[in-house]
Amino acid sequence: MNTFGRIFRVSIFGESHGEEIGVVIDGVEPGIDLQESDFARDIDRRRSGAKGTTPRIEADEPHILSGVFEGHTTGAPLTIVFKNTNTRSQDYSKLIDVPRPGHADFTANVKYGGFQDPRGGGHFSGRLTLPLVAAGVVAKKILAETISEETNGHVQFRCNARLVEIGGIADETRWEAALDAAQKEGDSLGGIVECTVDGIPAGLGEPFWDSVESRLSHALFAIPGVRGVEFGDGFAAARMKGSEHNDCFTPDGIDGHEGLVTPATNHAGGINGGITNGNPLVFRVAFKPTSSIAKAQRTFDFAAGEMTELRVPGRHDICFALRTPVVVEAMAAIVLADLIDLA
Amino acid sequence: MNTFGRIFRVSIFGESHGEEIGVVIDGVEPGIDLQESDFARDIDRRRSGAKGTTPRIEADEPHILSGVFEGHTTGAPLTIVFKNTNTRSQDYSKLIDVPRPGHADFTANVKYGGFQDPRGGGHFSGRLTLPLVAAGVVAKKILAETISEETNGHVQFRCNARLVEIGGIADETRWEAALDAAQKEGDSLGGIVECTVDGIPAGLGEPFWDSVESRLSHALFAIPGVRGVEFGDGFAAARMKGSEHNDCFTPDGIDGHEGLVTPATNHAGGINGGITNGNPLVFRVAFKPTSSIAKAQRTFDFAAGEMTELRVPGRHDICFALRTPVVVEAMAAIVLADLIDLA
Amino acid sequence: MNTFGRIFRVSIFGESHGEEIGVVIDGVEPGIDLQESDFARDIDRRRSGAKGTTPRIEADEPHILSGVFEGHTTGAPLTIVFKNTNTRSQDYSKLIDVPRPGHADFTANVKYGGFQDPRGGGHFSGRLTLPLVAAGVVAKKILAETISEETNGHVQFRCNARLVEIGGIADETRWEAALDAAQKEGDSLGGIVECTVDGIPAGLGEPFWDSVESRLSHALFAIPGVRGVEFGDGFAAARMKGSEHNDCFTPDGIDGHEGLVTPATNHAGGINGGITNGNPLVFRVAFKPTSSIAKAQRTFDFAAGEMTELRVPGRHDICFALRTPVVVEAMAAIVLADLIDLA
Amino acid sequence: MNTFGRIFRVSIFGESHGEEIGVVIDGVEPGIDLQESDFARDIDRRRSGAKGTTPRIEADEPHILSGVFEGHTTGAPLTIVFKNTNTRSQDYSKLIDVPRPGHADFTANVKYGGFQDPRGGGHFSGRLTLPLVAAGVVAKKILAETISEETNGHVQFRCNARLVEIGGIADETRWEAALDAAQKEGDSLGGIVECTVDGIPAGLGEPFWDSVESRLSHALFAIPGVRGVEFGDGFAAARMKGSEHNDCFTPDGIDGHEGLVTPATNHAGGINGGITNGNPLVFRVAFKPTSSIAKAQRTFDFAAGEMTELRVPGRHDICFALRTPVVVEAMAAIVLADLIDLA
Repeated sequence: MNTFGRIFRVSIFGESHGEEIGVVIDGVEPGIDLQESDFARDIDRRRSGAKGTTPRIEADEPHILSGVFEGHTTGAPLTIVFKNTNTRSQDYSKLIDVPRPGHADFTANVKYGGFQDPRGGGHFSGRLTLPLVAAGVVAKKILAETISEETNGHVQFRCNARLVEIGGIADETRWEAALDAAQKEGDSLGGIVECTVDGIPAGLGEPFWDSVESRLSHALFAIPGVRGVEFGDGFAAARMKGSEHNDCFTPDGIDGHEGLVTPATNHAGGINGGITNGNPLVFRVAFKPTSSIAKAQRTFDFAAGEMTELRVPGRHDICFALRTPVVVEAMAAIVLADLIDLA
Repeated sequence: MNTFGRIFRVSIFGESHGEEIGVVIDGVEPGIDLQESDFARDIDRRRSGAKGTTPRIEADEPHILSGVFEGHTTGAPLTIVFKNTNTRSQDYSKLIDVPRPGHADFTANVKYGGFQDPRGGGHFSGRLTLPLVAAGVVAKKILAETISEETNGHVQFRCNARLVEIGGIADETRWEAALDAAQKEGDSLGGIVECTVDGIPAGLGEPFWDSVESRLSHALFAIPGVRGVEFGDGFAAARMKGSEHNDCFTPDGIDGHEGLVTPATNHAGGINGGITNGNPLVFRVAFKPTSSIAKAQRTFDFAAGEMTELRVPGRHDICFALRTPVVVEAMAAIVLADLIDLA
Repeated sequence: MNTFGRIFRVSIFGESHGEEIGVVIDGVEPGIDLQESDFARDIDRRRSGAKGTTPRIEADEPHILSGVFEGHTTGAPLTIVFKNTNTRSQDYSKLIDVPRPGHADFTANVKYGGFQDPRGGGHFSGRLTLPLVAAGVVAKKILAETISEETNGHVQFRCNARLVEIGGIADETRWEAALDAAQKEGDSLGGIVECTVDGIPAGLGEPFWDSVESRLSHALFAIPGVRGVEFGDGFAAARMKGSEHNDCFTPDGIDGHEGLVTPATNHAGGINGGITNGNPLVFRVAFKPTSSIAKAQRTFDFAAGEMTELRVPGRHDICFALRTPVVVEAMAAIVLADLIDLA
Repeated sequence: MNTFGRIFRVSIFGESHGEEIGVVIDGVEPGIDLQESDFARDIDRRRSGAKGTTPRIEADEPHILSGVFEGHTTGAPLTIVFKNTNTRSQDYSKLIDVPRPGHADFTANVKYGGFQDPRGGGHFSGRLTLPLVAAGVVAKKILAETISEETNGHVQFRCNARLVEIGGIADETRWEAALDAAQKEGDSLGGIVECTVDGIPAGLGEPFWDSVESRLSHALFAIPGVRGVEFGDGFAAARMKGSEHNDCFTPDGIDGHEGLVTPATNHAGGINGGITNGNPLVFRVAFKPTSSIAKAQRTFDFAAGEMTELRVPGRHDICFALRTPVVVEAMAAIVLADLIDLA
């Protein structure tokens, strides 16, 4: 379905080259101070323009259509829309004949029988992560206020995602060269995003189906281009011994949690038995390299019934993972705002 | 919540040391041939007794309580229960005072305020994967029948998960020695399970929230002890170039799909844009080492208010990942039976 | 929640005096011929202007924002919005001090703590039934096409709701006089709508929670101002004997169902055990009299802390039930489109 | 689906003549004092044996299978089962050939293709209201405790349903004679149940889809044999004027609410705009006459392909509505426990 969440519920709609894209958020409590300028910072982080991203820039101005009255949320569904301004008339019919490798052209065609909007990826477009970022801003506000209130201001919610690897390179000083090289080859790069969430109280989540990892991974794998999600030590945990991986308890806590008994280490990424343990949540998300590349690919032409050579035209991100940390944060916040509402 | 799925819906209940554990499955179509003996093979694969698993063995006999009449499903909720036979009276109060590192003792205590059933992990116990395996058997039946019917018997559903790594070792011939060494040290090992699902038609799943990866990862992270999930090339995809990772199309298909145009390679693990592309689904699941170890751990005693030394008593799996491939299959089948019902 | 349905899912958003109101419909299959003019007929039936309804008229022009490409649904979320044109700047703060009897002013204030948009009823406004009517048009299209396809054109879907009583008067020739009299007194009238749905196949619905009556009544009681819902003989059934109320089977069927064995009578309203039986669905919905009346009412002024006299200003429907038959049809179609998708 | 509720979620399973029937309740908070004897009073009210009900009596002993530890709920799924003791081996195949008028035999056969368990109504049986009554007991406990806590004991939750009409007769002194007469004729009677719920705080429910009336009617129409549901003045409201039906506010409140501003009258049944207004909830439920009658009915024999005469054998309730007040209460409590959890 197109909706996620039990209490704080997020639905997205729209197509890359349609008139508007947007998000409806249900379950937002009344009285939250909210205006269009609140979205600027996170939307800006998602915007292209930097090295390794497409030079094509959209205005990305949020417009609140419902759910806010005199600067505060009303408790009724909150609708935020964005106009699509940078759309071009192009011949997209070719995408149905020669589906782009790595894209959803082929699967969308199977699923929707040719009726999908093929322009710019339609409803599958990464552009739909823009309303998700907007929902993330609302979720972060709710989390920050709830956590501050419940702890009398002692604990602060912080959600920080950052790119820790591009094309297998962890050393940030070498990224620019790698991006330049990939661009020269007409190729693309992937990346890994790490996210840390501080201030989440112990006790959120459920055993089994609604484990925190289940809910977070559900949302994270909804981001286009994600290939893997891991928590705490992640895949490395499978290569550790119990005595190395177990987080023993100490009364020393960790940063900002002194005095509180918490796991002394954080191999589990802040979650035991599907439930938050008071430690920061830590997880990593693997993004594939951009599928659209200038380099020629041998692929099948369904109309001609034979193999053909395809170069995907247009200005693409060399490494779209560069634009995803704020999307990862948004997804984490959307999930956690729902879980904290349920607690 | 304790329920998963939209059409084929699975709820589990029970505690490790309670009277019975069980599963209620809603949305099972009528007329499926089902008897208690159908569960034997998969239940046997989950059973302990092999090298590296606990010598404590339970009967694990499924009992169908509702939803089957004269050997066929009726279409009404299907309830399957298992008696807990191998329970021991023990003093579990200590688990609340000195929560076992890596277990849910601490988080359950926070969440349920001391009212949780602490015996043997209560509702958090890995024992609850037994009814999940039972639900998986039903899901596999539905998938096998549906796929066979829809393809006039040309395509067969196959779901195969196997352990590909123990303690970081991929070479199966060296596993026994590694397990022996860990046991001698009073320590434990993790492992990685790889699952391949054949026969799934193209077109299942949805863009964004209900992507196939979202649904599968949601279910897989519900298995106790999972630290990571990746599809296709997974984390390695983040280190590849677009020209290496993209799956181009050819009319040659892959095994069993000759004549059909499909991706020639399977770097994406059978999914594009959240939707199955006709290739086999391929994913890997990282399991942490068993949390219960005989080796001494320094941890906190909440009652005494000081650090203490803990050795977790009892007979535990050295590597519980050994028993999980059939659980991974069950989760995959549960998700896919739901998605195929929605298609 | 603000969403209804399992497969065909309808969410509404907006406020009476906000910028736009709208609906997002998820689960619409691709390939349905749909354009803005398709909505005209049903929207027109909901429009005011006739005897007994408010003279205030809005443009009510639907605008499809997403989910349609080149005249057909794409399978992605379908969003339809309507501009609010006939809004007036007014002082609504009084509604919080002196809540209008029969309206949601008081309860909204309790629930949303004063943050609700009070203008024109905000999100509670009957104006929100406009996007519901739009969703009903889509649902009717799906039902008509599905039923026609599945019966090779032999059976036609028809959904007809009509007002059968105004102010307790069943004789339509006497309604005008009753409306005139109520208007003269500054008072208002209620009414009863009866709906008949033909062509629904036997077998839809579920025992217990998802009985057809449960789903229909859920949607019908979501219409503002509904006080009662009854199926078939309804409340009169409670005064009948089993031998009078039971529908025995005959091979003669009823209109349009000759040759088929169906219940010969339709005391049950087309449903047995929560499941459709092939007979037309028949149900009645009771609407209260319009709450806004010009006549003086004694009520409480929360600001002044004393009783006061209130006359609700503005041009109101004398009998808003006159405008509801198409809303009742929309709700029925929304429910049935979801149930037929599940079958 | 077989599950109802968002936070407090109730699933039922089982068949009339199967081994056990039961209920799984998810979302029960930990720490509620609960034992099997708590169910006795309400189960007893549902039991047959009184004038007008079947002389066939079952033990109806609840057995808590999971979710309770040392006398308190644990927060994990609560499972309660009941053995079916009074089942008889009978030839039920005839129900498929000659479906009983008014029963689900015909519709179940269409829906489940002959695989349904036909014995005693299978999963459609009124016997399934027994686990619903058990869920109602838990819901009532939650409501009583929550309301008492939140009002420091000033307000008490009370939920009282009673039969107000049998066979159209409101005068209770005449019921026995009516029941005797119906029995003599081999016929059956319907009835009307009225339910009043006190102590519910203002502010529960949502506009539109999750109005209190929507949720309550959804649950009430899930009870087998319900033909109508109305709130407050109900169908009579459609015959009133606005000035008669509107509930004006006074500071006098009503019984037990002195000092609080509430609607002075209760024509709306305690709900405005889908949200509780602090007044008692009042609603009525119409039950049809028992479908099984000894009297001969002309109906169709599908096997013989001709009309036949049917007398439904067995000992049936003359008026099953006599046993439903406690079921109506259970449904109300299930809905309200969920809504109060969401508030």
